[in-house]
Amino acid sequence: MSGLYEYFSARRRRCEELLAARLPSASKPPARLHAAMREACLGGGKRLRAVLAYAAAELCGAQTDAADDAACALEMIHAYSLAHDDLPAMDDDDTRRGRPACHIQFGEATAILAGSGLQALAFAMLAESDLPESRKIKMLQLLAGAVGSGGMVGGQALEMEGEGGDLTAAALETVQHKKTGALICASVQLGAAAAGCGDEKTLTALTRYGRHLGLCFQVVDDILDHGKTETANSVTVLGAKRATEKAGELRDNAVAALAGIENAHRLRGIADFVARRKK
Amino acid sequence: MSGLYEYFSARRRRCEELLAARLPSASKPPARLHAAMREACLGGGKRLRAVLAYAAAELCGAQTDAADDAACALEMIHAYSLAHDDLPAMDDDDTRRGRPACHIQFGEATAILAGSGLQALAFAMLAESDLPESRKIKMLQLLAGAVGSGGMVGGQALEMEGEGGDLTAAALETVQHKKTGALICASVQLGAAAAGCGDEKTLTALTRYGRHLGLCFQVVDDILDHGKTETANSVTVLGAKRATEKAGELRDNAVAALAGIENAHRLRGIADFVARRKK
Repeated sequence: MSGLYEYFSARRRRCEELLAARLPSASKPPARLHAAMREACLGGGKRLRAVLAYAAAELCGAQTDAADDAACALEMIHAYSLAHDDLPAMDDDDTRRGRPACHIQFGEATAILAGSGLQALAFAMLAESDLPESRKIKMLQLLAGAVGSGGMVGGQALEMEGEGGDLTAAALETVQHKKTGALICASVQLGAAAAGCGDEKTLTALTRYGRHLGLCFQVVDDILDHGKTETANSVTVLGAKRATEKAGELRDNAVAALAGIENAHRLRGIADFVARRKK
Repeated sequence: MSGLYEYFSARRRRCEELLAARLPSASKPPARLHAAMREACLGGGKRLRAVLAYAAAELCGAQTDAADDAACALEMIHAYSLAHDDLPAMDDDDTRRGRPACHIQFGEATAILAGSGLQALAFAMLAESDLPESRKIKMLQLLAGAVGSGGMVGGQALEMEGEGGDLTAAALETVQHKKTGALICASVQLGAAAAGCGDEKTLTALTRYGRHLGLCFQVVDDILDHGKTETANSVTVLGAKRATEKAGELRDNAVAALAGIENAHRLRGIADFVARRKK
């Protein structure tokens, strides 16, 4: 497993260096906005979405740099979603990864604008990429679909609309797939699109892998965060024992989706990492 | 001028019908989010940005439908910016166009998500357009650049960062160009891109027109809104007399930029409309 650990660290570092170079400088006006965008994006994180894009692109035979734009765009979208999630009107969290949340450091208005600016920059980066136009269009379609009202934003809204009520296991899975799973699944798909993968068997396998992995990630999140929130989650709906079993099943399903796909060892390893992670 | 009035009304209606059809139904979950997106986008407005995109595309020789996706995307971005601007943490406005603001009708969290969802949908619509890929990419580049921290979002941040302080006329113009002008200029540019215009002389003329028109729009806004806000604006910085003169000069500059461009009568008429509008 040390191979995967080194791979994960190397791609995380690569993405963080690119993000630091591509985000507007905090000394350039509007300085406060740029500082907030940098803090939201560079203040830590596993960079799981970036690593998934790199691993999927490399599985499809591309050089690492083909996935650079996708990796940065995915992390910018993820960072925007966290900056907005933490707002008083949303989850009202004062801290993020042990640091003051974006709206605590910069104020609510700047946190809102920083999130919106990061979303725009993510799309700009894909549109300005050096990749062939057909790959860029595919990546833009996948990302826009994954973050809009049919994906991440829709999942956050569904979660709010369902707050306080009882959720069936199936309804909870819909929320989790949209809220968290859609962007994680899109990470794998963007990597394949960046590589220009046109093989239907591979694309179907990667999409199935991404769907199971995204749900697995959220179920594990719910187990790790249990007690921190009142929102319906895997533990409140399924119970702790069943939630833990389900995380393992989803990991197994993600790995099984890769059967017959060559060079999938890293994605298999990432599924294991997601299922076993402790934070 | 009755020709322009009819043209403006016809294109506005066309865009509104498309928006009503393309925005997710308010009966489809997440229903509250979708209702908020529809209210933010369909609750009135001049549709100036859409009409500019249509007029520019038609000037470049395209059929009207070539600009449909650009027109809808521009209006979605504009609607998102208004829904977020009205939030308590931003301008804290309870009404918009005589109706309760989005956050009053649906709550702050839903208004934030609706704005973000509209931004994503705008990019999705361009990425999914039937136009040739090279035109789509150009449109996506222009739109992402106009709405990010170098454009609209940056202008809103600059305005906040400058609040309470004195602004020079030049600094105010920078804020106005980013906050309002960038999206208006992009509207003309997206129309030309949708038409596949590759003529440098036309593109330069349209961009100059768009820049002057965008500033003209904001100066007139400041004159019409004078007294409603404490923020530095054309009237507080230049005085009412000079602001009125400047609006006329900017209109003249916009019209002059079109010299030698054929079929520019509608854009000239729109410049007149923007300079003379009473609301």
